[in-house]
Amino acid sequence: MNRFSLNQATTKHWPLEELVAGCVRAGVPAVGLWREEVAAYGLDKAAALVRDAGLAVSSLCRGGFFHEQDWYDDNRRAIDEAATLGTDTLVLVSGGLPGRSRDLDGARRHVADAIGALVPDARAAGVRLAIEALHPMFAADRCVVATLGQALAIAAPHPADAVGVVIDTYHLWWDDQVWRGIEEAGRQGRIASFQLADWITPLPAGVLLGRGLPGTGSIDMRRFATAVRNAGYQGWIEVEVFHEEVWARPGAEVLAEAYAGYRAAVR
Amino acid sequence: MNRFSLNQATTKHWPLEELVAGCVRAGVPAVGLWREEVAAYGLDKAAALVRDAGLAVSSLCRGGFFHEQDWYDDNRRAIDEAATLGTDTLVLVSGGLPGRSRDLDGARRHVADAIGALVPDARAAGVRLAIEALHPMFAADRCVVATLGQALAIAAPHPADAVGVVIDTYHLWWDDQVWRGIEEAGRQGRIASFQLADWITPLPAGVLLGRGLPGTGSIDMRRFATAVRNAGYQGWIEVEVFHEEVWARPGAEVLAEAYAGYRAAVR
Repeated sequence: MNRFSLNQATTKHWPLEELVAGCVRAGVPAVGLWREEVAAYGLDKAAALVRDAGLAVSSLCRGGFFHEQDWYDDNRRAIDEAATLGTDTLVLVSGGLPGRSRDLDGARRHVADAIGALVPDARAAGVRLAIEALHPMFAADRCVVATLGQALAIAAPHPADAVGVVIDTYHLWWDDQVWRGIEEAGRQGRIASFQLADWITPLPAGVLLGRGLPGTGSIDMRRFATAVRNAGYQGWIEVEVFHEEVWARPGAEVLAEAYAGYRAAVR
Repeated sequence: MNRFSLNQATTKHWPLEELVAGCVRAGVPAVGLWREEVAAYGLDKAAALVRDAGLAVSSLCRGGFFHEQDWYDDNRRAIDEAATLGTDTLVLVSGGLPGRSRDLDGARRHVADAIGALVPDARAAGVRLAIEALHPMFAADRCVVATLGQALAIAAPHPADAVGVVIDTYHLWWDDQVWRGIEEAGRQGRIASFQLADWITPLPAGVLLGRGLPGTGSIDMRRFATAVRNAGYQGWIEVEVFHEEVWARPGAEVLAEAYAGYRAAVR
């Protein structure tokens, strides 16, 4: 179990104290946290809770949303929160098209500029910016960075220990270029996070909450796990699933299934 | 109006005779037809109706669905139907993963093999197979061909007048490689069809019926129209939109808006 991490979004309604206790009980060594949930519990209190339980924080979600007016201040806060929580990985969901814009190239340039502007803050805090490409179905409203290739291109001008990329099976599985991208990301030392979720159909309205636990859908998880391992990644492997039906179930039960999915992928 | 074509799926509930009369009345020179609707009306009768009205048939949707058992016989029928309707373009939606398979590469190889097997039939009938890449959100259940680059790779072994590709704004707009792909498709003479639909959010459950009329969403239609023209394409430009709310409206009204969207794109 030593590289497994439960991303908090998988058990969204599991209160943080119960989640931490459940992870300790199950021998889970790490959790991925979300800013909203951490803020609701209290940042310093959350940091202490997790630290005192002996859990690592594999990542904090999310910075980014660079289409919003206050992106700079908000991302600086996110960097500080990551540092306070003791994680070196801030996942960036880069945001969609601003307003009624149709300028996708312009939005992507803005993301690159924004990340560049944040690098000094991130380095000073010892936090790495992890660019997450989201599935192209989110390109308009959540993330104009739609492929691993784009994420790598945006990361390229910066040192690998300052700006990395996220390999998330859910977002990347359809892309025939992803295997080459994972190799390249590994060569550059840029794999900052590896997240597992499965593709299940039909998608629900709004498509955000349509993910399956690893092993329940169309994605070849073992191929991803092997590719990421072969690329030299030795960090945490998070299970991060958003689904109302998963959220409605007891946290410990979901945790057990998430772990089983992880095991099947990495065995 | 001379290159505009109304794809029948945009006004799904408009009976074929009314649709044809409405197109003639509006001066629309071409229609794109669907096999199910044509079969419901009667193939020969539909062919005569459209021909007698002086309308061209810009394309027939759809062949493909190669994950199904009877793909060969069904696609041979689709080729014959296209020839009977007087169109040289059969749009292929290549199908998803078969059963519970997770072998995306294998499914893509099967699509390439299946298309190769159909080429002699298509050539004999004077019908071109037009490979349509669908948005990656359909990769599991409708079309494993998810990018224009993949469509071009599958087309590559075959003569350009036998196997072409579809440029559909809805499916391709998120891809930063699409502009290069359109240039390449043009150089090879492979652009067989150009279809307009816009990206609107939030997506509905099942995501199939989430398309907007051109001009109502996030896609830069003019950039696509210009790129396709610069690539040398001089064929029909279809508006093809699937949306329950659009279907609920009077056909003539939707036709007028579809045409306005086309005009704004090509002006």
